[in-house]
Amino acid sequence: MIDKEGKNDLKNLGEFGLIHLITKNIKLKNQSSLVGVGDDAAILDMGNQLTVITTDMLTEGIHFNLVYTPLKHLGYKSVIVNLSDIYAMNAIPTQILVSIAISSRFTTEMIEELYEGIHLACSVYGVDLIGGDTTSSLIGMTICITAIGAAPKGKIVYRSGAQENDLVCVTGDLGAAFMGLQLLERELKVFDKSGSIQPELEGYDYILERQLKPEARRDIINLLAEMEIHPTSMIDISDGLSSEILHLCESSETGCKIYADKIPIAGETRKMAEELNIEPLTTAINGGEDYELLFTVPSKDIDKISSLNGISIIGHITKKSEGNYLVTPDASLVEIFALGWNSFKTN
Amino acid sequence: MIDKEGKNDLKNLGEFGLIHLITKNIKLKNQSSLVGVGDDAAILDMGNQLTVITTDMLTEGIHFNLVYTPLKHLGYKSVIVNLSDIYAMNAIPTQILVSIAISSRFTTEMIEELYEGIHLACSVYGVDLIGGDTTSSLIGMTICITAIGAAPKGKIVYRSGAQENDLVCVTGDLGAAFMGLQLLERELKVFDKSGSIQPELEGYDYILERQLKPEARRDIINLLAEMEIHPTSMIDISDGLSSEILHLCESSETGCKIYADKIPIAGETRKMAEELNIEPLTTAINGGEDYELLFTVPSKDIDKISSLNGISIIGHITKKSEGNYLVTPDASLVEIFALGWNSFKTN
Repeated sequence: MIDKEGKNDLKNLGEFGLIHLITKNIKLKNQSSLVGVGDDAAILDMGNQLTVITTDMLTEGIHFNLVYTPLKHLGYKSVIVNLSDIYAMNAIPTQILVSIAISSRFTTEMIEELYEGIHLACSVYGVDLIGGDTTSSLIGMTICITAIGAAPKGKIVYRSGAQENDLVCVTGDLGAAFMGLQLLERELKVFDKSGSIQPELEGYDYILERQLKPEARRDIINLLAEMEIHPTSMIDISDGLSSEILHLCESSETGCKIYADKIPIAGETRKMAEELNIEPLTTAINGGEDYELLFTVPSKDIDKISSLNGISIIGHITKKSEGNYLVTPDASLVEIFALGWNSFKTN
Repeated sequence: MIDKEGKNDLKNLGEFGLIHLITKNIKLKNQSSLVGVGDDAAILDMGNQLTVITTDMLTEGIHFNLVYTPLKHLGYKSVIVNLSDIYAMNAIPTQILVSIAISSRFTTEMIEELYEGIHLACSVYGVDLIGGDTTSSLIGMTICITAIGAAPKGKIVYRSGAQENDLVCVTGDLGAAFMGLQLLERELKVFDKSGSIQPELEGYDYILERQLKPEARRDIINLLAEMEIHPTSMIDISDGLSSEILHLCESSETGCKIYADKIPIAGETRKMAEELNIEPLTTAINGGEDYELLFTVPSKDIDKISSLNGISIIGHITKKSEGNYLVTPDASLVEIFALGWNSFKTN
């Protein structure tokens, strides 16, 4: 049945109709994907590789606002968030399972748009969608994705392998996704008040894309393999640099010194931060959702790492007893606290 | 900080505090659980076995009502729902990942109670909790679990293997969980109206337990292996017999004849159905959440199957062209339609 706006109603499609709609075009790409959707469980055949698995949940109103997030982007980003965790193990993602809970305000077209983004991310990253669950909720949308990856035994990189004197490296630049979010929230507030003013988003393409359609750093994993650089520890930056470096040092039982002026910040990030009267460095240290990789390498690799574009050496690992410090440009030491994103905190 | 009722507030605990709380007592039991919580992803080593994986999402107000569902039971049931899918592949569950989204009305104590049930199910079924995600939601609770299992290659049983003349078998009895739900809903309505009347739940322990604390049929998987019975097809009954037999026949490209008087119904189920003026058979055919196994075996296995307690032969597989029929006690044929649970339908 079609409602008055010409949208298909999920009530009439039913769960099985919906499953058919979102799975009908799936073709499995990975050799390890033995059985995908259609039985009680999917089946993987990982042979002699190690299997890596992670899961992430995104809820409406907390992780995304559908007022300014296109559903296709949301689908894409939901996958990326999970793949990023697999790459952070130095593994290659191979399959995902996608579960969604949706309220009656969602139409078939909206769910198709969401899955367009999910399928696009699968296609771009060579990942198979092999299962999941679709169900309803009283209010809002919840997305839960489980990603599976594979790596030969010796290749996996843990959070816990950092050693004293290792170089601390970060990919890309930091704080951009957080500034993109602040921009969107600002324009939403203006819109809520005036109801008609066109949002001022021009000239901020980069930070908006970093927020709405982030990528996972598969290129870096491939580059490190090519250059025969084996990180001693690695983590992806989803909650902010300060939070992640503390996780890494805690797991590795080390301390660290991070040099403030070495932290990569994009021009647009800096510009937006200044517009909002935020210190750009604060944004780069505490802003989440960049999905860049933070890793450590032995100091002997300094020449190799320095020769690579898009990787910055931002500090080094110290003894645990020396603590976790940020070194400011005037050489004073500031202790690093995790100010990363806490979804349970009310502002 | 402790609120006025003496309950710990999740806002103050934070995500990492919450993760610590719910993971601090985890000890990995399965050899294939190489790395559990604490890194970007968990790591499994499945050796030469096949890996089986499934996921299920449960939302408050749709799948559960916290007014009459103790959180410990909810945690237990959330795990069971997933393990049941793994057993339905004739595989043994080995790990789970648990993601929850919770609103600010939940306290630390409530989450601990939920995880008590999750840990209990893990312990009873020998499964390792290896990861997950904890996040907040604007309203209500959503639970998403991914379960992983293993089986040697030749042992996996699909939905698609049923052959003409195979016997259709079902474990335990059907419709009890649905009657338990109806009883709880009836008493809730009485309570909502009167506000004080004690719920009349006595004498209905069995159907209440089937609804609130179901079990997955590990015993049947072990029994079939012991008896060297290899089902040709199998599915678990989560949405109701009618829905599941149609899935099985569709996947196997067969038809079926199911004999109404062979469908196992417990005394309490029958009694409750009659009290509510529902035909007990309707309950057994369309009621969901029993988590029993529906499977087919070659007709040569009839003696072996008949010798087992707790397994009923309810019909046989026919040619696809013969359709899917229920044979009533007076030998008339009624076509089987899926009236199973559809969470997108409004009543």
